[in-house]
Formats: sequence, structure tokens, C-alpha cells
Amino acid sequence: MANKPSIPKGTRDFGPDEMAKRNYIFDTIKRVYALYGFQQIETPAMETLHTLMGKYGEEGDKLLFKILNSGNYLKSVSDDELKERNTLKLQTKLCEKGLRYDLTVPFARYVVMHRDEIQLPFKRYQIQPVWRADRPQKGRYREFYQCDADVVGSDSLLNEVELMQIIDTVFTEFGIRVQIKINNRKILTGIAEVIGEKEKIVDITVAIDKLDKIGLDNVNEELRGNGISEEAIEKLQPIIKLEGTNEEKLDVIAEVLKDSETGLKGVEESRFILDNLKNSGLNNEVQLDLTLARGLNYYTGAIFEVKALDVQIGSITGGGRYDNLTGIFGMPGISGVGISFGADRIYDVLNTLDLYPKESVQGTQLLFINFGEEETAYCLPIVAATRKAGIRTEIFPDKVKMKKQMSYANVKNIGFVALAGETEMQEGKITLKNMTTGEQELVTPEELINKI
Amino acid sequence: MANKPSIPKGTRDFGPDEMAKRNYIFDTIKRVYALYGFQQIETPAMETLHTLMGKYGEEGDKLLFKILNSGNYLKSVSDDELKERNTLKLQTKLCEKGLRYDLTVPFARYVVMHRDEIQLPFKRYQIQPVWRADRPQKGRYREFYQCDADVVGSDSLLNEVELMQIIDTVFTEFGIRVQIKINNRKILTGIAEVIGEKEKIVDITVAIDKLDKIGLDNVNEELRGNGISEEAIEKLQPIIKLEGTNEEKLDVIAEVLKDSETGLKGVEESRFILDNLKNSGLNNEVQLDLTLARGLNYYTGAIFEVKALDVQIGSITGGGRYDNLTGIFGMPGISGVGISFGADRIYDVLNTLDLYPKESVQGTQLLFINFGEEETAYCLPIVAATRKAGIRTEIFPDKVKMKKQMSYANVKNIGFVALAGETEMQEGKITLKNMTTGEQELVTPEELINKI
Repeated sequence: MANKPSIPKGTRDFGPDEMAKRNYIFDTIKRVYALYGFQQIETPAMETLHTLMGKYGEEGDKLLFKILNSGNYLKSVSDDELKERNTLKLQTKLCEKGLRYDLTVPFARYVVMHRDEIQLPFKRYQIQPVWRADRPQKGRYREFYQCDADVVGSDSLLNEVELMQIIDTVFTEFGIRVQIKINNRKILTGIAEVIGEKEKIVDITVAIDKLDKIGLDNVNEELRGNGISEEAIEKLQPIIKLEGTNEEKLDVIAEVLKDSETGLKGVEESRFILDNLKNSGLNNEVQLDLTLARGLNYYTGAIFEVKALDVQIGSITGGGRYDNLTGIFGMPGISGVGISFGADRIYDVLNTLDLYPKESVQGTQLLFINFGEEETAYCLPIVAATRKAGIRTEIFPDKVKMKKQMSYANVKNIGFVALAGETEMQEGKITLKNMTTGEQELVTPEELINKI
Repeated sequence: MANKPSIPKGTRDFGPDEMAKRNYIFDTIKRVYALYGFQQIETPAMETLHTLMGKYGEEGDKLLFKILNSGNYLKSVSDDELKERNTLKLQTKLCEKGLRYDLTVPFARYVVMHRDEIQLPFKRYQIQPVWRADRPQKGRYREFYQCDADVVGSDSLLNEVELMQIIDTVFTEFGIRVQIKINNRKILTGIAEVIGEKEKIVDITVAIDKLDKIGLDNVNEELRGNGISEEAIEKLQPIIKLEGTNEEKLDVIAEVLKDSETGLKGVEESRFILDNLKNSGLNNEVQLDLTLARGLNYYTGAIFEVKALDVQIGSITGGGRYDNLTGIFGMPGISGVGISFGADRIYDVLNTLDLYPKESVQGTQLLFINFGEEETAYCLPIVAATRKAGIRTEIFPDKVKMKKQMSYANVKNIGFVALAGETEMQEGKITLKNMTTGEQELVTPEELINKI
């Protein structure tokens, strides 16, 4: 009956040390979200396939984990359908539920189902795992957490400003220096309009993004290679060579986009956001970056992305404004703006830079050594007292060799060990050993509590 | 394309108010677990069906949610097998993963897979959802959280003592008065041995349990109806009529069980646990209850159960000692003891008794009313300052009617509202309105922070 156990590929166990670090990340993000008035919700791991299918493109539909129906799952499948072996068609009969793929679609579904309870603007955050049947690789998992915050039902750009402040506050608390990049979909649309190349906006941003690496001539060459006209390339030059402060950049862009209503709206929005952020004393730099082009088929206004300055890793937070979150569920007119922290990458950055505060990952603070029944009876009231004082305390449950108990303290990284033998018991005291310095001293139970 | 969204039956959305309450419950339990040196782990939602199948009985196997394999899930199914329509056999080919059914089997799997990293005794806690394809009914869900703590790799009864202290501490923090019941599987085995009715131990405990309701004669009648011999019933009388303090009960049982080695071991264990608990100053009563018979095919020593004294509801926490947690995965000799808090029922009890501390469910504390762009510019630095002081603060993002903004404050149960118009701006002040008392006063930004 014995089999060697394993876990599904692309999934992970989190042990005590990893959990302490992950809790530090999630607790920090949660505290800051709450500080800005965001409220937590949770949705079920399983959603109906009606809710999930068709929301992530054809590829996304394939990457959904589907749940086999309970009981006789072949009930509504005819012999002919079985013989046909059309797995796509068949799965809609075998399965009516799937695991959530992100937190956005469940949130949209939540807003529609609870429209009568929700007070708009609705500022919600949600920190839960999602599942994708992607091919696992380094840094890509089939189960991972997303940490989303969104405001829906408000078009005010103050929301964008506050989300940037949240990002700044969170990374300041983590001690991670970041660069926050912002762009605006409307500016990109404006550029495409003005140069008459609406379809090629992604090619253009990709090419511009290479300026530092390959130089102006090569960027223009790449644009030509993508079939952009000479006239359009000419018009693009001020944009490609865009430099200076955010204000200077916006002035140049406004000039280039003077004939595009949409483009100018994007400039105005960016100005509002950047002006307000300048006055709010951010710790990290916010930079207008026209090459930022994430989520272009989704975002309709501001686009955000955060990169760590001291670690080479992809973006660690992203977000933007979108229209019509809930239209697909029959409730039009709800727009919103949101961000999502990449917990797994933040975990890696904090590890690389060794930034976890000691207290945040410290488990048990004090271990009482077990010398036998009598000594234990002496220790138990003291153990109760240290716990009452809020000190995370253990007493080793078994009377085993001292060496084994000390090794337990070492492995669990416990800061202090308390020992009580005959001498201590006679004097009503405890020997307290500092595991970092090796120092030992004889103390009363009250002194013990004050020492830790 | 629009469809009216729904969620799978037996699952739930948790809105902001419910989440605040649930977080209060989980955070309290987590803090107490950590106070006793337990460390958190998490395991993936999906486990291989190898890990899950055969662990919960035939019925349990049916209640597992199974995940359809990705890609061509019919690959290894022959035409004949399809034609056969044997859903049980077929599903092992269609699916190789399932959702976890409890936290115990994943924990056992974790211990085996991480045996080389784990320091024994291993005190772990785990708070995660589990999924069961049960027929949903009031209070029974297809997705629900379990909150387990276990110590494995230690036979010491101090672990039992500490788990009872954890239970006492948690319910004291909640303000829920409880009765903690303990029993011991070895005592039940001893009784069955002594009266020569090994097979009927469950029938016997069920009958004894009815003493209060139906009286001694009817209990004996029921025993007879269950085929228990007159001689056995005679021997059972002191057990059925068992009354008095825990010590008195144990004395009577020890006398009845004097010929059963196992039974006496159970008495000795119970005595150790109860004696140690008596000296540790519990706030709630611990009662020896021989009719407590949960998990009889699983627990091998102590058995625990907790009932709320002031609300009629089933058990709100349970647990016990078990042998050989990991034998099924090829790693014998690991025994343990654990408890599990029933979060959903505790939620109901706290609701019924209205015991949530106000602070624990309070979201935003302060809302700034939005009177327009100029006023907002005046307020934003003050908003930043209150947040810096740790006050959960919002500024209404849109300039809409005052009434709508006040209604937002009411619905979100925000304690204070801050207003700044022309007068306030001239004086460098803020009007602060206490939403509970209705009082208003004109204050400086510093005074504002101190008021909240």
C-alpha cells in the first residue's frame, strides 16, 4: 500500500520559514491596503465554467483546470459523442466547474452578484491563490498567489494617485528601492493616430524601448523593418528621443499630439497623476515611460509597472485603468483601476537583498529544556507566565538528551533557552541562556520575562 | 454574451464584513498557535490522486473533487473502455489530481516528503480551505476552512496538555464560554475488553450518552436491544452511573478496569493530562466524558471535543492522539496528537453572542469629504499625515453630492468624517464630525490625529 508521495508538478509546499516570510509580505500589503480604505473579500476556488470560459482567450481556456463532475459524469454524453473523442467539446459535458485563473474575473462576477450590497466606489482587495495549467518553469508555477486591489465605480484620477502611493508605501516598508513607471493608453493611441499607424502601436513601443541598447539609427531601422512609413518615423523622432523630467516629456508629447483629442486627454491624465504625486512626498521615483505597454488590450487609461532597482528581475507590480469590468456579465458602465503585487518575485527580491526584519520571521523566542517530570512541574507555571506576557514559548515535550534539545533550539532559531535543575528549583530561579551570545545567567521568572 | 453569473453550489463569497470577522478568528487562532511554538505550513490545493485516494473510505473517494487532466485527457483511454462507461474506472485515467479533502493527509504527505528538513517533534499548524463534494445543506459547505495544529514525533502527554491550554486560551480570547470534554480510546477499549463486548463499543457509548434523557432503565434496555449480555450490562452499571469530579470518575473507572492493562493505561494518561491542567489555571472546565467517541477508528489515545455553553450548536473544536500518521506513505513510527478549530461554527457562535471586538471589525476610521479640486489639494497632505499616524483613512475620490458621500461613510461604518471648505482652508483647520455622536468640532490637523 505504501507509495512514495509527490505533489503535482508546478505546485509547492511552503515550510515554516517560507511561510513566515510570505506572511510578512502578505501582512504588510494587507495593512497598507487597509490604511487606504480597501476592504478584503474572498471568492471560492471553484467558479462555474460559464464564468471562466472565454475570458482569457483561446489559450487561457486551455489553461483552466477543470473539475470532473461528481457522480455519473457521463450521464449526458451519448455513445456517438464518446466515439468522436472531441476533447474540447466533451469537456463541457464532463465538467461544469473550474479553478479560478485570476482574481479579476471572480471580482467582476462578485460585483455583479452583489451589486445591491456594494457601496460604490468599491475599494476591494483580494489575496488568494490562482491556478493555471501552464508548463511549469523557473519562477512560473501552476498555483500562485495574486494580491490585487481595485477601485470600481469611480472615474476619479485620485484613485490612480492613491494606488501609486500604496505601491510607494509598501516598497518603502519592505526596504526595496523601486522605480515606478507610468504610461497612458490614450497617449499611445494618440501617437498611433497622429502617425497614421493605428495597428502597429506594440511594434512601435517595442522598438522605442531598445533606444538605449541599439541606438537611434537602429531603432529607426527596426521601425522601417516593421513597415512603418518614413513620414511616420519622422513624426516619431521627438517621441523616440524623449528625455528629461516628466514635465518636459509631457510638454514634448503634448506638442506631438496636438491634433489628437484622445492623446491630449492621456497627457492631461498623466499630468494630474504626476503633479499630485509630486506633492505627496513619495520615497520612490515615478517615471513617465512611453515604452510601457503591458495589458494593451485591457487597459484604457493609466498603465503602471514597478521594477526593483537593486535586483535584476521582471516587474514586481503592475496595474492600470480599465473600462467596463462587468459588461461581460450583463452589467455595463462599471470601470475601475487596480494594481497587483507579484508576491513570488517580491519574495525573491527580499531574499536576495536579505531584507526580512528579524522579528518578522522569528518563531519561538524561548525554549524550556525538559529534565524530567519534577523539573517540568516546576517550569510549567513559568511557561504559562511567559506566554501570558506574550513571549512565544515552548517546553520540550520529551525528556531526551540535552544535546538533542539544544539542537532543536538551534534548528528552530530560538533566541533563548531556559534551564531549571535542582539548584535553580531550590532558589526559585531559572538559568537563561542567550543562544546568540552564549551568555548564561541565573534569573527570577520576572527577570526572565523582562530579559526577552 | 452576457450571462447571469452564479457560483458553484455549496461555495460562498465572503464580503468585507464577513472577511473582517473571519480574519479576527484566524488571526486569534494563529497568534495563540504561535505563542505555543507551532509553525505554519501550507500545502497545494491540488494533490495527486495517489496521495488522496483510499484515505477516507469508499465514500470519501467519491467525495473528492477530481481535476480533469490537461490536454488530450482521452489519450490513454481505449474505445472499449469508453464504451464500457465505468465511471469509477474511467476517472483514474481522466484525472490524476484532486482537491485536498482535509489537512491531515496532506500533512502526512508533507512530513514524509520533507522528513530530512523537519526537526522532530514537529509542531505545525495549517489554516487552509478543503473541498468535499458533499450534498450541501445548512452549515455544510463544499469549500470550507480547517484550522489544524498537530505535534508529531513525540509521545509525551505534555502535548495533550498544551493543546488543551491552546483551546482554553483561544476561547478565552474570543469570550466564548466552553466545556472541554476529554476521553481516552484506551479506556473505551478497556471497557469493551472487561465486559467481553469488544465489537460493540460504539453502541455502548451511544446508549450511555442517553442517560440524562431517557433514564437508567431505558439505557439498560437499549443495551439489551443491542445484544449486550446481562453480565456485561451488570459490569457496566458503575460506568453508566458515573458521576462526580474527574478524580472520582477516574477512581471508579480504574476499579472497573483493574484487569485491563490497556484500560488502566488510559486511566493513567487521563490522570496525567487532567492533573497538569488543574495546576495550570484554565478558564474553562475540562470534563472527563466516557461517552465522547469521535474518531474511534482513528484516535488511539486521548480524544477531545469542545462545546459552547451559551449557544446550541455541535462541537466547535475536536482532536485526539493517533498512531502511525505516515505509515500509509511508507514511513512508520510517526505518531502525533492534534486539534482542529471549526471556524465556521465559531463564526456563528461569535455572531449569535455578538462578541466581535469593535476594533477587530472596524475598517476605515476616517473619511475626508470631497468638495472639489482645490479643497482636495488642501486635504491630501492631511490625509497623508493621518495615514502616516496609522489611521485608516479615505478621501472620497469623486466630487459628488454631500449626501452620497455621507451615506458611503454610514454604510462602511466609518467613525469620523473630515470636512474642509473655504472657512477651514483659511484657518488651516478641519471640521471633524463624530459619526456616532453627531458632534462636530473645528480642529487642527494635529488635533485631528489625536482625536482618533
